[in-house]
Amino acid sequence: MMKVPEHQVAGHKAKEGVMGPLVDERGRFFKPLQNEERGSTEKWFYSSLSSHLNKHNENENENENENENEIPLAFFPAFHGTQEVEASDGSGPHPHLVLEDLLHGYAKPSVMDVKIGSRTWNLGDSEDYINKCLAKDRESSTIPLGFRISGVKDALSSWEPSRKSLQNLSAHGVLSILKKFVSSDAAAASDSHPDCAFASQVFRPLLDRLLRLKAWFEVQTLYHFYSCSLLLLYDKGDVDGERKVLVKLVDFAHVVPGNGAIDHNFLGGLCSFIKFLKDVLHH
Amino acid sequence: MMKVPEHQVAGHKAKEGVMGPLVDERGRFFKPLQNEERGSTEKWFYSSLSSHLNKHNENENENENENENEIPLAFFPAFHGTQEVEASDGSGPHPHLVLEDLLHGYAKPSVMDVKIGSRTWNLGDSEDYINKCLAKDRESSTIPLGFRISGVKDALSSWEPSRKSLQNLSAHGVLSILKKFVSSDAAAASDSHPDCAFASQVFRPLLDRLLRLKAWFEVQTLYHFYSCSLLLLYDKGDVDGERKVLVKLVDFAHVVPGNGAIDHNFLGGLCSFIKFLKDVLHH
Repeated sequence: MMKVPEHQVAGHKAKEGVMGPLVDERGRFFKPLQNEERGSTEKWFYSSLSSHLNKHNENENENENENENEIPLAFFPAFHGTQEVEASDGSGPHPHLVLEDLLHGYAKPSVMDVKIGSRTWNLGDSEDYINKCLAKDRESSTIPLGFRISGVKDALSSWEPSRKSLQNLSAHGVLSILKKFVSSDAAAASDSHPDCAFASQVFRPLLDRLLRLKAWFEVQTLYHFYSCSLLLLYDKGDVDGERKVLVKLVDFAHVVPGNGAIDHNFLGGLCSFIKFLKDVLHH
Repeated sequence: MMKVPEHQVAGHKAKEGVMGPLVDERGRFFKPLQNEERGSTEKWFYSSLSSHLNKHNENENENENENENEIPLAFFPAFHGTQEVEASDGSGPHPHLVLEDLLHGYAKPSVMDVKIGSRTWNLGDSEDYINKCLAKDRESSTIPLGFRISGVKDALSSWEPSRKSLQNLSAHGVLSILKKFVSSDAAAASDSHPDCAFASQVFRPLLDRLLRLKAWFEVQTLYHFYSCSLLLLYDKGDVDGERKVLVKLVDFAHVVPGNGAIDHNFLGGLCSFIKFLKDVLHH
């Protein structure tokens, strides 16, 4: 029994004529393999993670001391290979990446997708693609802030600002969205006085994990992640203290080998986003 | 008694028909105020640092705990206002910034100028300027590595690779230059076996200071530094253990206010450069 994910906040949604991701009841997420290079890049990336997992399966959790050759696999969705499944647009069987459904088991998820980096393109891309990305980077918050919020949604109050309104937020606008994201009623929260009821419960563990991710990005020269997103997630439902805070990296269609340098573009954007989280926590 | 600086590694050098900086015997560096916006921006920046110094003169040293509102003034050349002096090109009196001559008192300085950041332009710049910078960023190491080495010189052996050869180094090439920079005879050091005699004496204190600078860039939202350089300096002469290692930020003609975000562009490039220093120290 495959269905369209209920709380997708970024990327192509499955609808009539558009091939999009599907989920099953066992917690698997089927992402249509994109055409040509994007699809093969993403498949290569997951396979390369997977081979790393097999080599180092005793170390699959996040480590206290980050090592440049040790991938913190807890930050990546589990990968179960590729599979031909019936495409969501009814066009017939299509190869899909079989991933972990990150939202599986969440009663009322609050989700945010943040595309990290002040540059979403790379030198190896075509001129057309570079120009398209650069134009979008310039008109969005990507260049000024080093990231753009691609989508946010609160399943409890149905708060879901338009994607367009999120992409070119100012620093002040980002703070406002982050505060609403952790407020008890995001939809009703006024710009000036969101209650930030869950700020500590959500942003403290989130910050701990992002600082660990940052430590890895300060040393790793394996990959550069262009147009890659942080997916931030917690359960806003009636839960017993436990908010199931989750941080994962998603979207690897534009990952390239690091060639001896750290991913300064991702790292800079990540540090910028971390500073905003700290500002919400400390005010 | 003004003269042309002996060991300038980047920027316009004073020569016939070209206005360049001058130094005097008292350790002052006279930098011609550039035309229009660049000159006024650099003057504004130094004045803004200076007013900060006057307000907080009890805290003018680097601090253990970096505070976003507290500028680590030790990383900036001292500023003594502006002054009309005879221009180096013989064109008559011209306004100059009066700065600290960072190389004053060095017998045999080794100097490196590293332009930090993977983007040397900003959104407020003209299309022409953006296109010019972007082209140079793409063909140099600026985009792949997050910085480019603008110049390097060893006054002892007269080692001074051409500026052009430095700007588009690969990761491997940067490691090689850094190793030569701290080798006893840089000019003779072969690519594969520089002796790295001063690596520990020079790069350990340098790294300590750069990590402190990084800590400030993780929180400060006052300024964004485009096309700004790190000037790295030590004395290679016959000194008693003391190598007078110095790190300063220079060139502020393209500094803009931070508008609530950290300077993720500078920070990412700085982290990338730090990783190379660590690699030289640990191998």
